[in-house]
Amino acid sequence: MTLALYDLAGADDALRFSPYCWRTKLALKHKGLAFETVPWRFTDKQRIARTGQDKVPVLVDGDAWICDSWAIALHLDAAYPDRPALMPDDTARTAAHFVQCWADLTLHPAIRPLVLADIHAVIHDEDKAYFRESRERSVGMPLETYSADPAAARTGLEAALAPLEQHLAAVGHVSGAAPAYADYIVLGSLQWLNAIRGDPCLDNLPGVQSWFARMGELFDGYVRDAPTAARAA
Amino acid sequence: MTLALYDLAGADDALRFSPYCWRTKLALKHKGLAFETVPWRFTDKQRIARTGQDKVPVLVDGDAWICDSWAIALHLDAAYPDRPALMPDDTARTAAHFVQCWADLTLHPAIRPLVLADIHAVIHDEDKAYFRESRERSVGMPLETYSADPAAARTGLEAALAPLEQHLAAVGHVSGAAPAYADYIVLGSLQWLNAIRGDPCLDNLPGVQSWFARMGELFDGYVRDAPTAARAA
Repeated sequence: MTLALYDLAGADDALRFSPYCWRTKLALKHKGLAFETVPWRFTDKQRIARTGQDKVPVLVDGDAWICDSWAIALHLDAAYPDRPALMPDDTARTAAHFVQCWADLTLHPAIRPLVLADIHAVIHDEDKAYFRESRERSVGMPLETYSADPAAARTGLEAALAPLEQHLAAVGHVSGAAPAYADYIVLGSLQWLNAIRGDPCLDNLPGVQSWFARMGELFDGYVRDAPTAARAA
Repeated sequence: MTLALYDLAGADDALRFSPYCWRTKLALKHKGLAFETVPWRFTDKQRIARTGQDKVPVLVDGDAWICDSWAIALHLDAAYPDRPALMPDDTARTAAHFVQCWADLTLHPAIRPLVLADIHAVIHDEDKAYFRESRERSVGMPLETYSADPAAARTGLEAALAPLEQHLAAVGHVSGAAPAYADYIVLGSLQWLNAIRGDPCLDNLPGVQSWFARMGELFDGYVRDAPTAARAA
């Protein structure tokens, strides 16, 4: 039985940009599990209402509907122990959890000014009012004001990524010698940026840039070949 | 034979504030190794010249003079394998390395405006010219200008610590169930702040505050009982 993943899509069904959904898609690829994605839009809340919340990713695995990318990653390792582990032990889970906190609370605030206005431009018309209202409430200003200084935002992104640049100079992957879930967390964040801008904005971070390119080749170029808004436009 | 550690000191020999030296002192405590600290000042470069560089911590272990807190931590695990491990395997080393990069390149820039001017006030007179010149070159402005807005700096510190606050809400220690080297890295950073200000500035971060207090109790209150500039003044 094929797994199904509700995956945030733009007006163009092929444009998939949610960092949290990317984490889950890469986790499923790492496990070698077949899955299909179901394009989902911000206002499709009724379709995932049985999860008791209103956000994707949502993974449908048989009778189980699992929400939250972290819970999904834990589920995949528990339910498919014979497949390659995303986080093989407690130490790896703790390490990936710290990386996730850093991605969500340091990296995403640095990426957000580079993508929010552009996301509004590429989502389905039915989503636009919800997206503008919820995001402007969250950032406390109009999206266009928030995204008005991309040069400053790139400087902020480079500062946020400085620890990753130094880490990757010493260690080949976020997780160590081989890619694992902590890598997919960060890759999902940067693919959010890349999907929306057609550019991961890594020109001044050669270590992260090289890692991003190598990660893009995994799973037959799964990230490399993913549509971006710039390519789709 | 007792190990010796060159440890940065203020004008008052008892005031020890270097985050990197704290990492090493806590690592030595974790290993259960007896050591004595040798108070060292910024301008005492000749005393550690045999290491080929001019920074502390420097650990003297028999004939070996080892510099750099990360190299010292690796040395302690390799040289004393029967003692409790700081980083028991490759996964733990990779995880601690990421935490170290984050502490050095995200947390320290957030702490620095809260401490630089105050450090200048508490170091030995012989150190003051060197410290002012090197730090003002690094931050690109007078120390007093750099430290002029502590309220803004505290807001910046809280933003930098947001990932740690979220991590500790789910996991008891930075390293997982029990404290290990990644905890000592972050504890060293916050003890830098605490030693200089007599306050780790964690009032709005209850998870980090609770962890800092628990960590202070380790090793018979080694951090809790350490002199601070505020107490010394």
